[in-house]
Amino acid sequence: MSIKSRIRSIPDYPKPGILFRDITTLLQDPQGLRDSIDGLLDAVEGMAIDKVASVEARGFILGGSIARELGVGFIPVRKQGKLPWSTIGEEYQLEYGTDRIEIHTDAVSAGENVLLVDDLIATGGTLLASIRVVERAGGKIAACAVVVDLPDLGGAQKLEQAGYKVISLCEFEGE
Amino acid sequence: MSIKSRIRSIPDYPKPGILFRDITTLLQDPQGLRDSIDGLLDAVEGMAIDKVASVEARGFILGGSIARELGVGFIPVRKQGKLPWSTIGEEYQLEYGTDRIEIHTDAVSAGENVLLVDDLIATGGTLLASIRVVERAGGKIAACAVVVDLPDLGGAQKLEQAGYKVISLCEFEGE
Repeated sequence: MSIKSRIRSIPDYPKPGILFRDITTLLQDPQGLRDSIDGLLDAVEGMAIDKVASVEARGFILGGSIARELGVGFIPVRKQGKLPWSTIGEEYQLEYGTDRIEIHTDAVSAGENVLLVDDLIATGGTLLASIRVVERAGGKIAACAVVVDLPDLGGAQKLEQAGYKVISLCEFEGE
Repeated sequence: MSIKSRIRSIPDYPKPGILFRDITTLLQDPQGLRDSIDGLLDAVEGMAIDKVASVEARGFILGGSIARELGVGFIPVRKQGKLPWSTIGEEYQLEYGTDRIEIHTDAVSAGENVLLVDDLIATGGTLLASIRVVERAGGKIAACAVVVDLPDLGGAQKLEQAGYKVISLCEFEGE
C-alpha cells in the first residue's frame, strides 16, 4: 500500500466543503509510519542539515524521528505562549484573524542549516512563518519536507517561488 | 553530559513558585535527543509492544521516533476537538476545572499492547486519562515511559500503585 492510500479523507471537516486529509491512519500503521519517515530521510540525503524544526503538533511525530536519524537536534516551533523561555515569534494570517508561532531564542545558532518538517502543506502560511522565525534567529533553511502536498492551495508553489526547496511524498489534487 | 544536566530549570514558570523543567535544551542537543529516545528504547527492550501512544504535543517528539524504531504504529492522544474522526474521550482534573483527551475509535485494536510515551510525569493526570482511554478502546498498557519524573508530585507512585509499570530516565526531587 502506498502512503497516499493509507491517508483517510474526511468530508466536511472541519467545516462543510472541506475534504480533510487525516494522517492518523497512515501513522498508526507500522509500514505507513516507517515509509513516511524514511521517505523524507531518503529525500534529504546528502543535504547539509544541522537541526530539524517542526510545527506543533502533528509535525513533531515525524520531526523528532528524522532529527534522531540524522544525528542532529530537534527544535519545536510552538503556538504562542507554549514555550517557557525567551522567544522569537512571527504572526501569520488565518482565514479569520492571525496566529503566532514561536521558537526559543537559543534554538538556532547563526548559520545553522535547518530542515523544516511538517505533515502537510496547504496554503503554506505556517511553514512560511516558521521559515521567517528560523531566519530571524540566524538560521538558514535547508528545505521544507512534508508528507502531503495539497497543490490546489498553492503553498508549495509559493515557497518555491520564494526560493525554498519543498519536498513532499504525495499529493492530493483536484479530488 | 547527562540527560538531567541538559534540562533547563526555569523559576516561576508558568506561575510564581513553580520550577519548570524545560526539555527543549535537551532535545535541541543531538546527543541529548539520541540519549532520550535510545534510553527509553533500552528500557522497554523485550516488552511486547504493538503500538506507541503519546500525548500532544511534547510527547509526540519522542513517541514517533520510538514507534519507528520498534517497528510499530503511532497513536496521537490529543486534546478535545483536535481529531477529525470518531473518538473515545476521557476527562481529567486540572488544578482548576477539567480537560479532556481523545483517541480515534480505530486507533487501538482489542488486545493490543500499547506503550505510552511522554516527556515528563508530574501528578500523572494526563497519563492516567490516556491509560483509561486506551483501555476503553480494548488495549492493554505495556508501560508508561517518560524522560523526567517529578516524584514529589506523586504521579509515578500513583500509577505504580494502580498496577502500571512506569519507566523514567531521570528525576528532579526536592530541588
